Amino acid sequence: MQGSSNLTDSLDDLPQEIGEYDDFHTIDWLRDIARDRMRHRNIIKKKNDGVWEKIKSVHDAWSGWVCVLLVGVTTGLCAGIIDIGATWMSDLKEGICVEAFWLDREQCCWSTDQRGAGDYCHQWKTWSDVFGASGSEAGSYVTSYVFYVIWAIIFGILAAMFVKVFAPYACGSGIPEIKTILSGFIIRNYLGIWTLLTKSVGMMLAVSAGLSLGKEGPYVHVACCCGKFFSYLFPKYGSNEAKKREILSAASAAGVSVAFGAPIGGILFSLEEVSYYFPLKTLWRSFFCAMAAAFVLRTFNPFGSDSLVMFYVEYNNPWYMPELIPFILIGVLGGLYGSFFIKANIAWCRYRKTSKLGNYPIIEILVVTLITALLSYPNQYTRMNTSEMIKILVQQCGPEDDTDLCDYKRNYSSYLLNTTSIKILTSSTELGDGVYKALWMLALALIFKGIITIFTFGIKIPAGLFIPSMAVGAIMGRMIGIGVEQIVVANHDNPFFENMCQSKRFCRINPGLYAMVGAAAALGGVTRMTVSLVVIMFELTGGLQYIVPLMVATMTSKWVGDAFGKEGIYDAHIQLNGYPFLDSKEEFTLTTQASDVMRPRCARYGSVVENDAPLSVITQDSMTVTEVEHLLKSTSHNGFPVVISQESQYLLGFVLRRDLSLAISNALKKKDGVMNESSVYFTTRVPDNPTGPTPLKLRKIIDLAPVTITDQTPMEIVVEMFRKLGLRQTLVTHKGSLLGIITKKDVLRHVAPSENENPDSIHFN
Amino acid sequence: MQGSSNLTDSLDDLPQEIGEYDDFHTIDWLRDIARDRMRHRNIIKKKNDGVWEKIKSVHDAWSGWVCVLLVGVTTGLCAGIIDIGATWMSDLKEGICVEAFWLDREQCCWSTDQRGAGDYCHQWKTWSDVFGASGSEAGSYVTSYVFYVIWAIIFGILAAMFVKVFAPYACGSGIPEIKTILSGFIIRNYLGIWTLLTKSVGMMLAVSAGLSLGKEGPYVHVACCCGKFFSYLFPKYGSNEAKKREILSAASAAGVSVAFGAPIGGILFSLEEVSYYFPLKTLWRSFFCAMAAAFVLRTFNPFGSDSLVMFYVEYNNPWYMPELIPFILIGVLGGLYGSFFIKANIAWCRYRKTSKLGNYPIIEILVVTLITALLSYPNQYTRMNTSEMIKILVQQCGPEDDTDLCDYKRNYSSYLLNTTSIKILTSSTELGDGVYKALWMLALALIFKGIITIFTFGIKIPAGLFIPSMAVGAIMGRMIGIGVEQIVVANHDNPFFENMCQSKRFCRINPGLYAMVGAAAALGGVTRMTVSLVVIMFELTGGLQYIVPLMVATMTSKWVGDAFGKEGIYDAHIQLNGYPFLDSKEEFTLTTQASDVMRPRCARYGSVVENDAPLSVITQDSMTVTEVEHLLKSTSHNGFPVVISQESQYLLGFVLRRDLSLAISNALKKKDGVMNESSVYFTTRVPDNPTGPTPLKLRKIIDLAPVTITDQTPMEIVVEMFRKLGLRQTLVTHKGSLLGIITKKDVLRHVAPSENENPDSIHFN
Repeated sequence: MQGSSNLTDSLDDLPQEIGEYDDFHTIDWLRDIARDRMRHRNIIKKKNDGVWEKIKSVHDAWSGWVCVLLVGVTTGLCAGIIDIGATWMSDLKEGICVEAFWLDREQCCWSTDQRGAGDYCHQWKTWSDVFGASGSEAGSYVTSYVFYVIWAIIFGILAAMFVKVFAPYACGSGIPEIKTILSGFIIRNYLGIWTLLTKSVGMMLAVSAGLSLGKEGPYVHVACCCGKFFSYLFPKYGSNEAKKREILSAASAAGVSVAFGAPIGGILFSLEEVSYYFPLKTLWRSFFCAMAAAFVLRTFNPFGSDSLVMFYVEYNNPWYMPELIPFILIGVLGGLYGSFFIKANIAWCRYRKTSKLGNYPIIEILVVTLITALLSYPNQYTRMNTSEMIKILVQQCGPEDDTDLCDYKRNYSSYLLNTTSIKILTSSTELGDGVYKALWMLALALIFKGIITIFTFGIKIPAGLFIPSMAVGAIMGRMIGIGVEQIVVANHDNPFFENMCQSKRFCRINPGLYAMVGAAAALGGVTRMTVSLVVIMFELTGGLQYIVPLMVATMTSKWVGDAFGKEGIYDAHIQLNGYPFLDSKEEFTLTTQASDVMRPRCARYGSVVENDAPLSVITQDSMTVTEVEHLLKSTSHNGFPVVISQESQYLLGFVLRRDLSLAISNALKKKDGVMNESSVYFTTRVPDNPTGPTPLKLRKIIDLAPVTITDQTPMEIVVEMFRKLGLRQTLVTHKGSLLGIITKKDVLRHVAPSENENPDSIHFN
Repeated sequence: MQGSSNLTDSLDDLPQEIGEYDDFHTIDWLRDIARDRMRHRNIIKKKNDGVWEKIKSVHDAWSGWVCVLLVGVTTGLCAGIIDIGATWMSDLKEGICVEAFWLDREQCCWSTDQRGAGDYCHQWKTWSDVFGASGSEAGSYVTSYVFYVIWAIIFGILAAMFVKVFAPYACGSGIPEIKTILSGFIIRNYLGIWTLLTKSVGMMLAVSAGLSLGKEGPYVHVACCCGKFFSYLFPKYGSNEAKKREILSAASAAGVSVAFGAPIGGILFSLEEVSYYFPLKTLWRSFFCAMAAAFVLRTFNPFGSDSLVMFYVEYNNPWYMPELIPFILIGVLGGLYGSFFIKANIAWCRYRKTSKLGNYPIIEILVVTLITALLSYPNQYTRMNTSEMIKILVQQCGPEDDTDLCDYKRNYSSYLLNTTSIKILTSSTELGDGVYKALWMLALALIFKGIITIFTFGIKIPAGLFIPSMAVGAIMGRMIGIGVEQIVVANHDNPFFENMCQSKRFCRINPGLYAMVGAAAALGGVTRMTVSLVVIMFELTGGLQYIVPLMVATMTSKWVGDAFGKEGIYDAHIQLNGYPFLDSKEEFTLTTQASDVMRPRCARYGSVVENDAPLSVITQDSMTVTEVEHLLKSTSHNGFPVVISQESQYLLGFVLRRDLSLAISNALKKKDGVMNESSVYFTTRVPDNPTGPTPLKLRKIIDLAPVTITDQTPMEIVVEMFRKLGLRQTLVTHKGSLLGIITKKDVLRHVAPSENENPDSIHFN
């Protein structure tokens, strides 16, 4: 760290790239933060050197706020554009606005002011109208069906091509990768501009194709792409990987904020689920970012109401204590579904990885899209957008609703107001035929959605699973809700259901609330989110009174899910892909010590285990350039400890491979007298040696303050240090002398077996 | 840490107390967490050894949840009792329920069903009624005034006596101390049962005395007392200081949750403001705790409505973009007030500490209570409870309100409904005389509250300042709101105010919203809370639509406040009292290295600075019991490094003073052959020495994995390590050999000067 501060101070004679990272490498948080403090100090020091420096210092102080503002605004804009595009394309599957094809159904009918009778408007033509097939009912149905499937396949293939050609990283939800990136890993281009564009367009196409996926998870990826883009405008963030992650944390909060219109939930999601290193002072900035994004999106008003949120519910009725029993049941089912989904999805993804299937992503997408489209169309609940279906399911039936789901027996009540009798339509809680039909349809939709999502999440197009999971949960919840309602109606005089029924015909059970609770339970089972999920749902419903049902269901769901496997879907995908992610939440129970994990093994007893090469070290003053270069060539380590001498391995510091090879090649090229026979010195004083070749002084590039531990340190403490300090490696000493080294890779390999994972799948540096 | 694991394994021959802490000591987080893991591992290992062990393991797994549930429930109960008691006593100042003196005014009138005309009820007698002085108006006023003042003084003195006699720690808000405790400091009895009881009773009395203080901050203290009490029921938490702090973090969330009925705000408050070490897995548990507390409190229903919250507002009108200008103004004023308050209050508290005033706390309380009561009574806004005043200020005026504040000119509009004409009363936005009167009263209340709070916060009775700060802000906001309203009414045809006015007589400006924003701004200025404040206010208003105004005001207030001094009131009090608190949020800009801070100074150049004693070390095998005891007596360090030999200071481990002296005195007493001349061995193998006295083997008590750093480590990194790992001390090495030691005290002393603080005021071990 001292080395790095020297770096910035006087690195005129060393190449620029020193201090940066290679692709797929782990960052060293402590070092990066020290670099940032150094930079900050320089700016403060120069502050009074004139107006320009003053402006620079003000710019620096404000850049964090400006950057998150820009990120928030852009995220809001992107989300708005994606929403509009996806709506237009989704509507395109059913019909077209004849006078202005660029308008979606709602705008088409609204702009021409032809709403007229009900939902029907003249400007909007379905494909069967356009092709004149609306004469016979069968013909109309077949035409619509065919167009629905054709458009779906076109959109699906287009999305797949986009991803394949422009940015392969744009596939999937992106959250596992963003978790990994935020934990301090470099994946170049994962958050690039091409990824942003491809993901945005791909999301519109994928959603419009009617696949069982959502655009909420990918919003986080899109927001992080915006975050990375704008961080380059501010060197404070752009050139420092650790600081950049502060912006990315804020961006991921903005992503969830626009996905659900839930800024507080977004913050908590970023804090609980995505972020690794979240200094509290960025909490406020992230909140600002999330608010800005939600505010910009609101001006687009894609949710079609005054409220910020996606599934705004208007009911305000109380819930009753006995209802907690079905809520717990919903939680159990949500947890079971979550575990089942995770296991099945991971098994399928593993099969895809290991079999030939993985070589034909486009064919896979084609097949999935075709099956989805063919099976979706006949069922009204799967035919519509998934988020629209959830919106319908969480609503309470009013007396005016004439959908199947709300087909309760109605009756007119007469009221007397000021001598005038007014007839008011009230709904009862007795079921009509429509509800039975709707229940059948919902049951089919539940099975279909539950199964197809397993095969959809993981195909090579942008795909989130918030919405499909919530849809499954909402269907389940609504069905249970209707069941509970009818049980209560049948037993309305039972004292257990006291207060819940006014009469046989009117019981205050709201199946919409059950759907809401079910959505939370299923999402909780799949992602294992807790506080953030409750807060997101709380922001969606907008009232504190349902927080207890939501909490009970989420809690049950998480406990039941955890009983079958501790990991949420994102962690499972991280493990499946072998990303170097050291979970900051998990408690590892290890009985080992540093000496059991370090490389080389068992060096403390003087006898190195045969398989292990001895520790590669550099001595402070007794190696030549050739020797160092040979060491660089013969090993692949990312850094080398610098010791006093080979005999007494007392530690001086640590030097990174990248820095060392850059410095040597630079010196060989530019410095007179430095040649292969030159001695390499890491000491402060270099002995005068007029006869030999010019010595190469490299003290500047070594880190004089490497983190060290003793060989007897329990691994639990070592893991804690890696997590909390964000280390890349630590040196192991015994009574002061160097014994070995533990890298993040070693730590991950060591903790992995306890999670039934193949340690070889961790591939990174 | 290895030492501590040995401790638990086989410490049969060592005294029990090893591993505990003394009062006013700093805890070692890493060591405590390692101890807990060891304990956990033992339980898991024994799990299959029979039913009893199985039960124990289940008990252990669930104890966290059970404990926070108990804490939450008890906190809710305490809050409910305090609320009821405070209401009763507050009402006692004005009158009494003749038939049942134990009822407060509302219950008295409600239970006897005598509400009758308006607010008047026969069972409730004011003191002037009781003493027959209600004949003349002046007599009645004077009698009431006198009783008001007398009761206030009685309550004030009682509160002061309670605190002085039973628990001096019960004074103040408690939040600064709890922050310090949560950061890893031991203050015995601060969270004891006596403190809990005294604080609860004292709060009721203090609030009833009509002093300018709130009971919201102290709720956090009460909740933490409950937390500590219940943690003793679960050895997992009770006997481990680091784990206990997880419960305390949850408890502080519950405290805020019951204070405002805002569980999510409570969590964020705990996370942002109070907690130091907040593992994310406890986030969920804290949320559960906060919810349980809020739920229990709700069954008491002290806020008198269905909603959980304190100042429930029912308005739902939109706000307009131009209104952001007054909101920013309110933010600026809030920030200015906050800085002024902090500076004035700290100056007064410092004066109290250094002058003779501090010796007469009861007289001080008497004087403050007398002045407060005398000045409060004549003004209706200060006479009522502060929280009641805020409740009135944040309300919107309806047409039915006949208070002064809502004395707008009214008129009747006629509507035709089904051939019947109905007259409806609508309010205009033209001011009546009452509003002018109310404005004057509010202005006086503002000045009075603003000044008296400075002298009240810090007297030796339980006193929070959420409510007084919010009151000042709410008055300010309401006044500005009425001003803005009238400006808009006067310029209702200005295009800038487009949309805001329907006609001259009806403009949609809601002064209640301004009061709400003002309360947030003032509270933000005083405490410098950010996200948690916005979320608390959001939960109070219950709607996302006002989040932008609240955010703008809080943000402005924080920025303005920070320009005059970075610290919030709690941090200022921590500094004033010299608590050893290492701020986890602040970024220290330090240019020093470990070698500049460690003790002894400058040892690296071979010459110890004269003032500094050389480093006290223990050698692994060459000291006798007498020598070690002499070392213990001649120094006051809390621990000693163990090195190979005095000549080669290569580090073996670290031993704590407490453990060392316990072990030696234990061995001298109980072990045969160990005497003063015995050699003390910290090595694995002890040489056979049949002639001399039995050697004393102490390897078990040393920590073989002390955290070490090199002398060149920048202090920024050292501070980061202390904060993140919760260190108590770290050893400084140079090329493997020991140079010195840095304790938390040294770090605090080193960072303190940069904060204009007297380093000598840090008094702790």
